[in-house]
Parts: sequence; C-alpha cells; structure tokens
Amino acid sequence: MVREHRADGTEPTDRWWGSYAARASGMIASEVRALFAVASRPEIVSLAGGMPAVDALPLDAVASTVADLVTSRGRVALQYGSAQGDPELRARICDVMAMEGITDAHPDNVVVTVGSQQALDLLTRVFVDPGDVVLTEGPTYVTAINTFAAYQARVVHVSMDGDGLVPDALRETLTRLAAEGARVKLLYTVPTFQNPAGITLTASRRAEVLEICRRAGVLVVEDNPYGLLSFTGEPVRAMRADDPDGVVYLGSFSKTLAPGMRVGWALAPAPVAARLVLAAESAILSHSMFTQLAVERYLATQPWPEQIKAFREMYRDRRDAMLTALAETMPAGATWTRPEGGFFIWLTLPDGVDAKAMLPRAIAARVAYVPGTGFYADGSGRNAMRLSYCYPPPERIRDGVRRLADVLRAEISLRQTFAPLATTNPRATNPRATNPRATNPRATDPRPAAPRTSDFRDQ
Amino acid sequence: MVREHRADGTEPTDRWWGSYAARASGMIASEVRALFAVASRPEIVSLAGGMPAVDALPLDAVASTVADLVTSRGRVALQYGSAQGDPELRARICDVMAMEGITDAHPDNVVVTVGSQQALDLLTRVFVDPGDVVLTEGPTYVTAINTFAAYQARVVHVSMDGDGLVPDALRETLTRLAAEGARVKLLYTVPTFQNPAGITLTASRRAEVLEICRRAGVLVVEDNPYGLLSFTGEPVRAMRADDPDGVVYLGSFSKTLAPGMRVGWALAPAPVAARLVLAAESAILSHSMFTQLAVERYLATQPWPEQIKAFREMYRDRRDAMLTALAETMPAGATWTRPEGGFFIWLTLPDGVDAKAMLPRAIAARVAYVPGTGFYADGSGRNAMRLSYCYPPPERIRDGVRRLADVLRAEISLRQTFAPLATTNPRATNPRATNPRATNPRATDPRPAAPRTSDFRDQ
Repeated sequence: MVREHRADGTEPTDRWWGSYAARASGMIASEVRALFAVASRPEIVSLAGGMPAVDALPLDAVASTVADLVTSRGRVALQYGSAQGDPELRARICDVMAMEGITDAHPDNVVVTVGSQQALDLLTRVFVDPGDVVLTEGPTYVTAINTFAAYQARVVHVSMDGDGLVPDALRETLTRLAAEGARVKLLYTVPTFQNPAGITLTASRRAEVLEICRRAGVLVVEDNPYGLLSFTGEPVRAMRADDPDGVVYLGSFSKTLAPGMRVGWALAPAPVAARLVLAAESAILSHSMFTQLAVERYLATQPWPEQIKAFREMYRDRRDAMLTALAETMPAGATWTRPEGGFFIWLTLPDGVDAKAMLPRAIAARVAYVPGTGFYADGSGRNAMRLSYCYPPPERIRDGVRRLADVLRAEISLRQTFAPLATTNPRATNPRATNPRATNPRATDPRPAAPRTSDFRDQ
Repeated sequence: MVREHRADGTEPTDRWWGSYAARASGMIASEVRALFAVASRPEIVSLAGGMPAVDALPLDAVASTVADLVTSRGRVALQYGSAQGDPELRARICDVMAMEGITDAHPDNVVVTVGSQQALDLLTRVFVDPGDVVLTEGPTYVTAINTFAAYQARVVHVSMDGDGLVPDALRETLTRLAAEGARVKLLYTVPTFQNPAGITLTASRRAEVLEICRRAGVLVVEDNPYGLLSFTGEPVRAMRADDPDGVVYLGSFSKTLAPGMRVGWALAPAPVAARLVLAAESAILSHSMFTQLAVERYLATQPWPEQIKAFREMYRDRRDAMLTALAETMPAGATWTRPEGGFFIWLTLPDGVDAKAMLPRAIAARVAYVPGTGFYADGSGRNAMRLSYCYPPPERIRDGVRRLADVLRAEISLRQTFAPLATTNPRATNPRATNPRATNPRATDPRPAAPRTSDFRDQ
C-alpha cells in the first residue's frame, strides 16, 4: 500500500490531491494496525494485537457446518440478502443478548453488520454532523476514534478509574460542553472488560451514567464484544437491559466465534434501527448471506455455550499468566489493571517513561505492545500501553512480559542517568496534542478530582 | 422493520428525532428493494430484481471448496484480515481484470470491498463534500443514487442514447456547472451492459468521455459488474485500460460467482487506493477473510471460465426470450433496448403512460418490474421501466412479458378513453421532482440536441 510521507502536506504525485473531501483529512492510519506487520514476525512475542485465539475452534465442525449450508441452502446462502440481515440470525442474536439481561429485544430492531465496527460506522453516519461531539472513555477503542474522525466528529474523552467511567467527570464535561454551545450526540462506551483498559463499569455507575445521558439527551452506544468472556462465569448485565430507549447496543461474534466471518450487530430503538438499515443499504447493499447463515447454523447445531466456556477458561489462564509475570518482573512505579474478562491489561509506566519512544527498543528485544497514545484522540497516554493476553499461549506471555520488564528497567536506568537534562513535566509539552478539535478534560482542568490514566492501578 | 410514515416530517414517537445528522435526511428507501417482498411471491413473475441465477452454480463444488478451506487454512480464514484485503485474492483479481484489457494493474492498488457497493461508498466518502456534484448517466444504478445522497452529493444526470453517454451532453453539463461554480468531483458510469438501460458505451465515445473528464479534472468511476457477461463472447475493453490515472474501476464477483459472498473491489491510482484502505478500516475494520479466501480458492481450483461461459449462454437465452416476447406482444409506441450482455432491458412506454402508477395493476396481473423513476435523482423516467431477464427461466420471462403487454394495452386504452381530461404534458407537472439539489439537464435545457430517455429504442 502506498502511503503519503510528506510532512508539508503537499503531494505532487497525486493528481487527485485537490479533489478529496474535507473528511478525508481525518482518515489516518491506525497505530495498532501499523504495528501488526512487525509484530507478526515469529520471533516476536506480540502483546499488541487483539486477535482472538481461533485455533481453539473445532475446525472440523466449522467445515462440516459451512459445507452442509451450501449443499442444503446454497440458493439462499449464495444470493443477495436484505440490508437488515437474515431474520433467523436476528432471532438467534436476541437469544444471545438475553444472556446479558436483555430480555425484551425484538429481531425487528436488530441490524446485522460487518462486525460491530460497521454498526459504529453506520451509527456515526446517521447521527454525527461535522463538529458534533462524541464522548468516549479515555483511553478508548482505537478504531472507534478513526471512525468518529472520518465523520469529522470532535472526540472528547471522559476520565475513568478502576470502576470505569467517572460520573462526576461526565457531568462536568457535559456542563463545560453545554457552556461552549457544543452539540453532544453520543456517549461511546465499552463498559465491560474495556478495550484497552480492561476495566468494567460498576452496576451503580451504569445507572448513574444512563441517567446523566438521559437528562442530557445523549444517546449511549454500548459496545460489548467481550461481555460473554467473563472470568467469573457470571455475565455482566448490559446497560441496554435497563434503558431500551436510550442505548444502542453493539454486539459481535468476532470474539466468541470467529472474526473472519465479520458478523456483528446493532440493537437499536425502532426508529434508529430503521435508519441504520437505510444507511447499511447505501453502504454495502446487503451483508453476506453466506457468513450470516454460517454463524446461524453454527449456533443452531454446535455446542456454542461450551465453546464460550472453553474460551473463558483459556483467556483466564492467559490473564493469570500475564498478571503473575507482571507482579514478578515489573519495576517499581509501574501499575496495571486486573481485568475480570476480555483481552486486555492497561499498563501505566513510571512517570516520564514514553511508551512510544520505547517501542523500537522493545521490538529489538522481541516483544510488541501498543503505546497508549493510540487510544486517545488528544495525545494523552504517553506513559501507558495496552497489553493483550488473548493470542499467545501462557509461556509466550511470560517470556514477553519478562522481555518487556527488562526493556523498561533499561529505559528507567537511562532516564535516571540523563534526568538532569530532561524536562521535568513531559505532559506540559506534549508534542502529539495536534488535533485542535480534540479536548482532554484532564489537560485543561486543574482540579484534582478527575482520576488520571495512572489511576488504573492493580487493585 | 419500522419505517416512518408521517408526511409532515414530524415523528413524535422517535425520541432521537432531533439528533440525526443532516445527511440522514438523504437516506431513503430504495424503490427496488421495497418491491422485492411483493415480487418474491411465487405466483408473480418478477422482472424486477437483479438477482443472478445462483442455482446454476455447482453447489457440491462450492461446498467442498469452503470445507477444504476451513480444514486446511481455518486459522487464517476465520481470523481478522487487513483492511485492504487478502494479497492472493488481489493478485487473482488482477488476472480477472486482464480479461478486459487491464494489463498493468498491481495488487497494491486493489482494495477488496463488501461488494462493489462498498467500493462506491468508500470512494464517495473520500471524495465528496456536501453539495459536490456527481455526474451519472440518466438513468443510473439505483443504489448509487442512494449512496451519493447519503453523502449529500448533488446528482446531475447526463443523457444517454443507444451508444451510451452522450459526449456533447457531458460537455454542455460541465460548462453549465462550471458557470454555476459547482464542484464536479466524479463521473459515475456503468459503461458496459448498463444497469438499468442495458446500453454499452461505444469505443470511440469511451475515449472522448475520458478526454473530457481529464480536461475537467473529474475522476471517472467505472462500475463494471457485468463486463464478463458479454453475449458475443468478446469482452468489452474497460475504460480503465486506457487511463490508469483517471479512472477508478469497480469490479465484483456477485454476477460471475455469487453475491452471497459480497466480494467486490476497487482498482485505483495508488494515492487514492491508500485513502480507500483507510476509509475501509474505519468502516468495517477488515473484510471477511472467510469469503475472500473462499472466492480465491474457488477461482484457483474450479473451472471458473467455463462457469462464466455457462452463465453467458444462459443469460443470452433469457435475453433472447425477452426480446422475442417484447417484439411479439408490445403495443405500438413502446420501445426497448437490445443489450449485448448483462441483465437488463430498458422499456420506454408510449407517451403519457406512467409506469409507477401502472405497477399495482401489473402486480395484480402477476408481473413485476421497476418503474423508471427509481433510476433518476430528479423524478425523470415516469414513462419507462427496467426489465430484468437474469433470474426467471425463459418460459417465465415469456409469461411475464405477455402479462405486462396486456396490462399496458389496458392502460393505453384507459388513457385514450380519458385523454381529453388529462394534462397534455405530464413532464411539466412532475410531482416527484422534489429534490431541489438534483438537476435534470433535459428539464431545464430547451434545446433538442440532447437525446431523451425515449431514445433508447430497439436498434
């Protein structure tokens, strides 16, 4: 793929340079994706990607499922479908959501999408005019930031602590934005086993966040790809279960079955669902009937709940391996979260260590991660990183964390040697805070009430 | 699915009514799609949909292909892929395009998309600001209009005759729009076996259109889903073959393999391809590896060229059945096109007959079609319709055309009875020309030079 490299913004080799839409300038390469080519080299332990462990799937069962599908229903599976998605799959999706307390979902209000990523894209398309505000946790899912940027949204982060999004910070942000005259359209949240922080919003805060958003007229977008991967075995009740009218729920089979199918969905209030269907039609005409029916048939004929249980146990073992290795190897001053499900741990480094600057040395030491800055729209997160435990087996995780700790210790030692020469407050001169539309409440609010990224400590 | 029915634009039951983006008002239900529910009833001969005849595919071969894929490469096929698409499939796509004279395509410049519809969506996203002009043939592919509307483009139709887009009309339209100060970004064209008119742009006009667009700085979007389905057996040379820098080519396996896979692509100049990849990532993260590799493996292991040959012969027989039936049954004053490939015939009714008003009577007589107005952004096409011969077998086509001719004769007879009461110029009071941004050059240009829709006659 050809990318542009010129820092001055000109590109004389591109004949169409002057023709692009304004929104195209917001379409930027994902820091996570750029890492994948390097991190996939076999000698490197990648704690970077969020790829599920599909090798744990029973491939023979998947193979016979898709072959039977073509033989018995090929005329339907290979044909165009509707923009809303297959009705039988939508009914089955309602059963899946019932496992998280959503017992009133109707298939008419479900829209099947190309992964939940497309649901987020369509939702943004339907709701967001240029300059409208989308609130997100800080840090947040990296490609959500890209999607919002593609629609010229202004992304404003709201602080989290170990209990998730901080309601007081949400109130303060809304008050400040209202004073500015900003139009706040959406609160995008991953409340359960968050990507990237591994944090889960507590039950009492869920109620509080819903109430704050209801009063402010802000639609809550609950992105929940990891909800069924709870390590306690107890599912977390979805926010949507308690506010059918105020929440659009995004779900996915990417983490509980296979991302290669690209089957996700949105559950939305009826009028919103109707608009999502129209948006989907103009975007892709219709989703693949083949992958939709393959998922539907797999759920109907295979022991899927047992598969999820196996996934849970596998991911829990890997989380445990990572937590143990972190406790055994990390130098003083490093802190990390303790996820109860999902794929990710958020590691905060000692003050002044720059995770992005350290990355080339980590790669050289054969371990990869995603620097924290990728998960903010405003350049925050320099001294943090996301560690994924979903893909490598436990022994590789232990190796990777050990290598990472060595690199970090060298970095700290280097820093102590040159400390007198360095600036004492790296936050004050953040060179990546280049997006004038993005706002970091922590950067502009001198009060200490709102927790900082470094508050995501092992607890 | 819940749709809004209120003519006055209010919707008190939708709590989010005030929150939608401006672009959401351009997302409208497709007239074609709305018909499908009715037209799929078994007693009705549907000449409406453009569904390929997937029952002609060797289902056993497809079944074993996908089963082998999962067994042998499941870890890749079920995992996330890249936003650009699988490299092996992109290489194979280059081979496919070489059949149409595109011999310089590089896989790096190919982006695999969810059908070519998504390629069109991404391209519009990258190029079109609200109010920018997209030129299209009149009539044009219905869901392209919806895609452009979703990005608040102004769709301006350029006339066609039996040789395709009229270069003089294109020049005149560009001159007029330049005088208005309009920004013309794209010419969207289906130059080969056009949907809906069945017309093919002649070779000399292709060169002329490319030259006009090059001078005007307008990017040509060549949408070519039907190119390989030529009834003469001779492939039509793609416009892209003669202008690698000025054309984005959109291709698809939906008509030559199976739409249920949703595998299409764009071939674009390198800098444009890079932007399409970024747009794709924010839209869907990555396409289904499963369907991409299924298509790749099918092409690699099955006699696909023979399959295309079988499709060509089948569709040619169906076209012949329709042309013969039209010649035998249609009343005087009706004219139609004679496609050399693809799926569609454009039927122009005698002056004053309204195809949309006639549709309920046709449905009652057990035949369905798509009224011409669906293929225009400006309300043109009232006295025309699209007839598809791709899906029903020949004997059904003959039955359908016979029923249609009976309905049309009754309509003409009714019209003659009440002629003194009717307006003499239905174009002057077109109730569907409600989009103030849309412009019909024929409606505002009093000169007779530009051919009209009714010029698509049997030739």
